Amino acid sequence: MPARVTGTGLDQLAVNTIKMLAVDAVEKAKSGHPGMPMGAADYTYVLWTRFLRYNPQDPAWPDRDRFVLSAGHGCMLLYAMLHLAGFDMPMEEIRNFRQWGSRTPGHPEHGLAPGIETTTGPLGQGFGNAVGIALASKMLAARVNTEDFAPITHRVFTIVSDGDLMEGVASEAASIAGHLRLGNIVSIYDDNHITIEGKTDLAFSEDVGRRFEAYGWHVQRIDGHDRAAAAEALAEAVAETGRPSLIVARTHIAAGAPTKHDSAEAHGNPLGPEEATATKRALGWPEEPKFLVPDEVRERFAARAAELRPIYDAWQRGFEGWRSRHPDLAPLWDQLRPSRMLPANLASTLLESAPREAAATRAHSGKIIQKLASLVPALAGGAGDLAPSTSTLIKDSPSVAPGSFIGRNLHFGIREHAMGAIVNGMAVDGSFIPYGATFLVFSDYMRPAIRLAALSRFPSIFVFTHDSVFLGEDGPTHQPIEHLTALRAIVNLVVIRPCDGIETALAWAFAVGRRDGPTALVFTRQTVPVVERAAPPTTDLVARGAYVLLEAGGGKPKLVIIATGSEVPLAAEARAILEKDGTPTRVVSMPSMELFLGQSDEYQTSVVPQDGTPLVVVEAGLPDCWHRIVGREGLIIGLRRYGASAPYKVIAEKLGFTGPQVAARIAAWLQDRKRRS
Amino acid sequence: MPARVTGTGLDQLAVNTIKMLAVDAVEKAKSGHPGMPMGAADYTYVLWTRFLRYNPQDPAWPDRDRFVLSAGHGCMLLYAMLHLAGFDMPMEEIRNFRQWGSRTPGHPEHGLAPGIETTTGPLGQGFGNAVGIALASKMLAARVNTEDFAPITHRVFTIVSDGDLMEGVASEAASIAGHLRLGNIVSIYDDNHITIEGKTDLAFSEDVGRRFEAYGWHVQRIDGHDRAAAAEALAEAVAETGRPSLIVARTHIAAGAPTKHDSAEAHGNPLGPEEATATKRALGWPEEPKFLVPDEVRERFAARAAELRPIYDAWQRGFEGWRSRHPDLAPLWDQLRPSRMLPANLASTLLESAPREAAATRAHSGKIIQKLASLVPALAGGAGDLAPSTSTLIKDSPSVAPGSFIGRNLHFGIREHAMGAIVNGMAVDGSFIPYGATFLVFSDYMRPAIRLAALSRFPSIFVFTHDSVFLGEDGPTHQPIEHLTALRAIVNLVVIRPCDGIETALAWAFAVGRRDGPTALVFTRQTVPVVERAAPPTTDLVARGAYVLLEAGGGKPKLVIIATGSEVPLAAEARAILEKDGTPTRVVSMPSMELFLGQSDEYQTSVVPQDGTPLVVVEAGLPDCWHRIVGREGLIIGLRRYGASAPYKVIAEKLGFTGPQVAARIAAWLQDRKRRS
Repeated sequence: MPARVTGTGLDQLAVNTIKMLAVDAVEKAKSGHPGMPMGAADYTYVLWTRFLRYNPQDPAWPDRDRFVLSAGHGCMLLYAMLHLAGFDMPMEEIRNFRQWGSRTPGHPEHGLAPGIETTTGPLGQGFGNAVGIALASKMLAARVNTEDFAPITHRVFTIVSDGDLMEGVASEAASIAGHLRLGNIVSIYDDNHITIEGKTDLAFSEDVGRRFEAYGWHVQRIDGHDRAAAAEALAEAVAETGRPSLIVARTHIAAGAPTKHDSAEAHGNPLGPEEATATKRALGWPEEPKFLVPDEVRERFAARAAELRPIYDAWQRGFEGWRSRHPDLAPLWDQLRPSRMLPANLASTLLESAPREAAATRAHSGKIIQKLASLVPALAGGAGDLAPSTSTLIKDSPSVAPGSFIGRNLHFGIREHAMGAIVNGMAVDGSFIPYGATFLVFSDYMRPAIRLAALSRFPSIFVFTHDSVFLGEDGPTHQPIEHLTALRAIVNLVVIRPCDGIETALAWAFAVGRRDGPTALVFTRQTVPVVERAAPPTTDLVARGAYVLLEAGGGKPKLVIIATGSEVPLAAEARAILEKDGTPTRVVSMPSMELFLGQSDEYQTSVVPQDGTPLVVVEAGLPDCWHRIVGREGLIIGLRRYGASAPYKVIAEKLGFTGPQVAARIAAWLQDRKRRS
Repeated sequence: MPARVTGTGLDQLAVNTIKMLAVDAVEKAKSGHPGMPMGAADYTYVLWTRFLRYNPQDPAWPDRDRFVLSAGHGCMLLYAMLHLAGFDMPMEEIRNFRQWGSRTPGHPEHGLAPGIETTTGPLGQGFGNAVGIALASKMLAARVNTEDFAPITHRVFTIVSDGDLMEGVASEAASIAGHLRLGNIVSIYDDNHITIEGKTDLAFSEDVGRRFEAYGWHVQRIDGHDRAAAAEALAEAVAETGRPSLIVARTHIAAGAPTKHDSAEAHGNPLGPEEATATKRALGWPEEPKFLVPDEVRERFAARAAELRPIYDAWQRGFEGWRSRHPDLAPLWDQLRPSRMLPANLASTLLESAPREAAATRAHSGKIIQKLASLVPALAGGAGDLAPSTSTLIKDSPSVAPGSFIGRNLHFGIREHAMGAIVNGMAVDGSFIPYGATFLVFSDYMRPAIRLAALSRFPSIFVFTHDSVFLGEDGPTHQPIEHLTALRAIVNLVVIRPCDGIETALAWAFAVGRRDGPTALVFTRQTVPVVERAAPPTTDLVARGAYVLLEAGGGKPKLVIIATGSEVPLAAEARAILEKDGTPTRVVSMPSMELFLGQSDEYQTSVVPQDGTPLVVVEAGLPDCWHRIVGREGLIIGLRRYGASAPYKVIAEKLGFTGPQVAARIAAWLQDRKRRS
């Protein structure tokens, strides 16, 4: 039976339990961040026991409140709360904090345990995700809530640190949240005045509250250790439904530690055995056993669960009644929830209506989005102020606007990074299949969000247009060179660069159907000629990553040209010249290198032979990643230089990307190859 | 002789000239952004003719005011001003706007013409650069200004758009500028209420002025077409030396165009011949000739140049006197200016003092920074709140702090993106050799800035520590996998990952000496064992990119293992096992793939034979880019998965990165290879 502990009342005892779980776990792991959980325990305890609505028996309850610990380094706070609140987070996992194979890594990872609503740690991302979750919730509510019952009324609570709020991605997300009047988000800023380098005022002296007021947020300021003040502020924040709320909670890092409170040392290092012991003594806490949870504290959380249970049960009853009373809305609900079924034969439906004419692939994409939107009500998205350029507007739907969430078109403003984080938040919420669009070169601005989607297996869709130097006059600052290589380097991101309307349709079908990770769809600005196809297209062309588009004359290739996107018709043009000159040439279209490399060896070599047949790649970007396909011996016609500001046809000519130039370069290379062998 | 033009006064005539140059250039190019230059012409004209100090005959004048057009899409405004003010920007270049080989690309590129102070276009970057330039100016002033003469008194003027101010990088930079009280920066916010998608209030309704007040800025609001108001506001902004200044200038995009003013259409498209003609008529401007500059306008700018000349001459005289009166400061000045000479034999000096013990390479770097700082007064830098973790503090120097700029240590806060942009601004200013440090995984947060440094040939230094999964318990969100590949993909960025103190010293020597582009220095968190060296190190080890660290027993390798950074000692350990088992094995250390691939073929094959000798790479990251070195046939021991939260030795064991595991894997591969051949 666990030891009894003295303390000034049950609430203090519970707060101390949270602190000591963090201290003990970090001590045992000999690494971690004890200071933040200790500083944040007071208001977090108030939040979880008096405000947050959850059901550990049904952690996927659609109307649960979401708790997002954006300050992910303080993860022991989250793990401790999940454990105490009765989620599937056994003490064994807390004892295994930061160990191989545990569900309690150094920063919270979505999917490892129920109740971890998103992956956090890279600063600012969790806050951006929280805005995305809150937005998705508002959009879902606008679709399904009725006068007789509202299935969606939950809130998103998030804890953010100095670090989160210094990051630009959080500034962008806060501006969007304020603009859209997301009254369902409550953010507690753990204002502990300490960062890794020391006091925050080394680098951070702005008035954060005033900044958030400028964004349109409701702002309160409290002593973060005053639990009564926290309760009052949370009540007021929850009551404020017309604006997002920020509670600036002045706290002391490692509060309770006799010598390390208010110290940068307590941020990212264990307190050390002596200070840990001294802390326990100071708090009237027994030194042993470690990982102690007093019975009264368990009872306190059990009582909270019992309080919440009727709310949950009432929701379930209300929801069943709502389902039967609204036969129009119930199917929509099912189409919007994460377990949704997509229309049967989506790929073939899209393929049938795929544009066949010469056009920019961004224009093809724009048409396909209309079709897809009519078939998949979960599809919603927008651009970083580039909807006309990226062709991503859903034409028969209004815009999501301040206080108005029935639309499907999102306006992210010129805030690519928050766009990525918000799309991720919507994806993990699961009610929508979200996309965010910008120019390919600006994928750099949102790269941390793309990586987190890939790591966390979020089905986010990123649309990148203006995909090469052939965007033309905007010049090198806007012309992607290395971006295909850089995106292909992100593990579990699928990058698709289609060559025509058919591949574009299938790329969208793949992206919408993918459930275990993000997809980047890469489209041209410029018109791409119609690609002559030797065989009628099948629905697996894109899903297999590559296929033989044009077989060599006579069926026995003496040369294989692999190309992607706008360089596929170029390869076809070069092939025509080379064939005429006597070289039987196969053209392979490879919209997705990753998907191709995931196929069987047999399929791969049936498309790209590895028997000494000369292999050539044409892609208007950095050649580096293509050595994986063609080794050191193949010819890669790419670009290892920045682009130039000029009309795109001039650029093509100057950089050697016309059909005759490509054919001539290949012919010379074949000659040279023959001479050397 | 050019035509005479009617107009309401000379100032209006000059403003109309600027507008019409932009309109004519965009019409001729049939692409570009006419709206912004037309909307910004009024206050820009006031700025250039009444405030900005410049000398077109000496565009590198150290005390010139800097003009940074952060809204780079409005580049015709800059090109027009440079032309009118007498810089080397002939009308022929303006007629060649956005054409191949012109000095007038679609976004301004530093180096193409004098007066283009930095490369802009990717939004928010120019503003961040401006903060960096202003910071460098303050730091230089703190070092060289004396009571009898102040060589550095200039200001940085920047024009920012809605898009700039929506971007997180600008929020971060503004917060830093406010914190540091950079009173030498004056930013005009061109508040035209229009973005590509339409009205800014689609996505942007925050109170920007109030936000900047929260950052600690001095904020004024004016009608941006009221030139008297602009003059007053600029005078007040210039007089405010204790805080950075923002002037919110409400303007109308395409002001003067009869139907397209206030229209999103005028943002990124030509007005069209009809509207262009109608605009000219409305402004009382002749339809022909195009590209007209009335004589009076030329005279107006010539008069301004004449006004400025005595200021310039006085500065030169003052400076000569200052040089002779301050024999202590004059050499410092020479060491700080862009044309600086570095100490002779810097590489060998650093090599001599290079740490030889087992330690993390970040720790080696920390020691070398101290030595380097003592030798090179231009060295200055800091971290994104990670100075203790990245070991980047210059120990005998104070911090740069609000209003105090004599230190060399910068505290960027948790704002990696602004750090990148500020470092770039300092690099292009040229008085300092700046570095910015964070964890390698967070290079993603600053990637747009890194790319612009590479594109613009800025000698920025980026320090990235915690360079692999072996950072340990912080887990996958913090463990870089793909980042070496992604950085190596940036053209003109040199990436160096040293394996010990010797390579670390030489990496720093290379980075500090590089003048035509940025360098990324990549260091470990964990201790790296001492690498046994067969030969005494020479100063060219890093500059050549790779070298034979350990030759095969007997001198004839049957196997070559290539490794970088912390995997070099691992390769050496595997070599010992393989040699013992009868395989003569060479170990190549390759701190920089790019530098190696820039060597002669002869050198390359002398290090990495391409004669069929089995090639193996060991690098704890994505294998993809290594196929460039070892083709499809080589063995690449890397990682195509995310990491894990655990002690680093456990991670090494679990992922197969111990000496015996690597040796066993190579041996099995050699067996398999033999069997297949």
